[in-house]
Amino acid sequence: MRAFASGKVGFELLHEDSGSRARRGRLHTTHGTVETPVFMPVGTQGTVKGVTPAQLHELGVEILLGNTYHLYLRPGTEVVGALGGLHKMMGWDRAILTDSGGFQVFSLRDLSKIEESGVTFASHLDGSKQVLSPEKSIAIQEVLGSDVVMAFDECPPGGAPVEVVRRAMDRTTRWAKRCIDARTRDDYQLFGIVQGGIDIHLRRASLAALTALPFDGYALGGLSVGETREATWSTIEAVAPLMPVDKARYLMGVGTPEDLLISVGHGVDMFDCVLPTRNARNGRLLTADGDLNIRNHRHRLDDRPIDSGCSCYTCRNFSRGYLRHLSKAGEILFATLASLHNLHYLLDLMAEARQALDAGHYPAFRNAHLARRAANAIEKT
Amino acid sequence: MRAFASGKVGFELLHEDSGSRARRGRLHTTHGTVETPVFMPVGTQGTVKGVTPAQLHELGVEILLGNTYHLYLRPGTEVVGALGGLHKMMGWDRAILTDSGGFQVFSLRDLSKIEESGVTFASHLDGSKQVLSPEKSIAIQEVLGSDVVMAFDECPPGGAPVEVVRRAMDRTTRWAKRCIDARTRDDYQLFGIVQGGIDIHLRRASLAALTALPFDGYALGGLSVGETREATWSTIEAVAPLMPVDKARYLMGVGTPEDLLISVGHGVDMFDCVLPTRNARNGRLLTADGDLNIRNHRHRLDDRPIDSGCSCYTCRNFSRGYLRHLSKAGEILFATLASLHNLHYLLDLMAEARQALDAGHYPAFRNAHLARRAANAIEKT
Repeated sequence: MRAFASGKVGFELLHEDSGSRARRGRLHTTHGTVETPVFMPVGTQGTVKGVTPAQLHELGVEILLGNTYHLYLRPGTEVVGALGGLHKMMGWDRAILTDSGGFQVFSLRDLSKIEESGVTFASHLDGSKQVLSPEKSIAIQEVLGSDVVMAFDECPPGGAPVEVVRRAMDRTTRWAKRCIDARTRDDYQLFGIVQGGIDIHLRRASLAALTALPFDGYALGGLSVGETREATWSTIEAVAPLMPVDKARYLMGVGTPEDLLISVGHGVDMFDCVLPTRNARNGRLLTADGDLNIRNHRHRLDDRPIDSGCSCYTCRNFSRGYLRHLSKAGEILFATLASLHNLHYLLDLMAEARQALDAGHYPAFRNAHLARRAANAIEKT
Repeated sequence: MRAFASGKVGFELLHEDSGSRARRGRLHTTHGTVETPVFMPVGTQGTVKGVTPAQLHELGVEILLGNTYHLYLRPGTEVVGALGGLHKMMGWDRAILTDSGGFQVFSLRDLSKIEESGVTFASHLDGSKQVLSPEKSIAIQEVLGSDVVMAFDECPPGGAPVEVVRRAMDRTTRWAKRCIDARTRDDYQLFGIVQGGIDIHLRRASLAALTALPFDGYALGGLSVGETREATWSTIEAVAPLMPVDKARYLMGVGTPEDLLISVGHGVDMFDCVLPTRNARNGRLLTADGDLNIRNHRHRLDDRPIDSGCSCYTCRNFSRGYLRHLSKAGEILFATLASLHNLHYLLDLMAEARQALDAGHYPAFRNAHLARRAANAIEKT
């Protein structure tokens, strides 16, 4: 095992579960240590929507995610650089992972041209012509000052023909090498992104090609992009255990409490998703007993908290009836209170998962949670 | 002077300034003591927009304002009652003042009918026909559980002919008596509202009629409704000193830092206004050196706080460049951070005014602040 002296960055595997593929670990960064498995809140435009850094601290957040695509277009690297990098700009002193921009660029309708050199696209903000490439993505992420930088990959659309998926995978490998060459500093970790869709053979080939390169960690990209949930889970189950044992494993853009619990059992260490904050703003609240739509009329006079077993700021202080009122009235405070609750739920779920792993009963913990969520008792209360 | 035993509600005059008409006082409520002069943040729909009660506590807020008109229409008194009253519903354990609904109802375009019995109007939410009367307003405010209940008054539009203003003033007096008769409890304070526009004779008549009634405090209504600023200030200067010395004096819906500093000097104790939060959401930030429009291009790369002399959460942690970015990107967090700053500015201004009063140099304090604001140095930095 690598020694983690002060200042050394990298993943430390603490132990592997005996009853599952799950792992307990620590991601060491220059902005603190992250206990894994971990859920990372998403701060797309340099803010977790509706939540202050002080509130993120209270939630126990140790790492959050920033989007290179969005920050590159607005406010732009000149601004982030002038304001001292992403950490200083957004007042966040813990770790930050940034994606490469690949996923967003390949999701654009106005994606104009994919070439070996890079991708030309039209900004969703003003239609201006923009270019991203492996070298440019790494350069941007170095200006942002990320603790975990993601390689620039090609993400084929969900359901693409196998030949399209294979070509994207091969290009991702070639671009991965260029990302490593483009790196100019070693105070951050650079993760490669395994592609290959839901084809296990392609995933194995992608993994083999990328693990031949000196990445500090590996991510599963191109999942939860339209394929069935069974296919997502089968791919994770088949591929995650093949990923290097001594490096962090990150499942990108996932997901629900079920996704997290199942994937942790397959050996995934890191997750990110807009789900808790986006669902919160839409009134969909996460609980151990299933999801609750706070906008339903039946909550109108209900003076109980969202979840009587929850210790978040929102549940300690506010009723379902009040939250419903704020939501119906379009009040900003609703986004804040609902986001605090949903983030607390997923962060707490991962904290409990880590405790279960430390205590050696992760499968029982996972199964109990999955069963309780599936019963969806909250919608009957 | 009245004795303020535990549980007694009412205004306590601490001392009057020798160099001005200003007063230091305390408003005792069943939800804590409020040091005056005081600025009350507005929580229109049961929330100060974008700010949590925890953040209001951090700001040192001792009293905030709720709007009877808005809360009556949504979520409605049935809901507020079921959720334990306004304090419990919104998670606020300090004092609350509620207006009577009069000002909002008389501001409506679809105001259909004013009769001696009350006012019939169409809800701005769904057009439904609604009625408010002195008795109903008091009953609603009792359900809300306000610490300071306002009498239901008739507010003539700014610039109305003197006969219209006089008739509204006379009706306000008759309605004031009905409000007192409608009261069923003595655990709150009931304030009468002096009308009369900018006509000093009418104001005196209104004041004489209302002070003959057993109100716990008196407000100046019908100001800052379209008349010139000079007329507002002249009216306050002429009328405020005539209001009962031993009762709280509340200037409704005002206002700017200048309005507060000048009115305190004329003997006003309490203020409320949406200005700090509404201006915040529009990017207009208050500072001791004048107002700053954070959306201006010149703030783009600026890594300084809004105001280097400000100790608020926003100024301690975030730059002008970042706040501009959040504002341009339409991020919810901007509303929160900007509101925290603007509220802190007005609350701090009143805290400094109280200190200046305690130290016996209020006029010098006021004049220095007015001169510094007028120089508007912030827009030159």
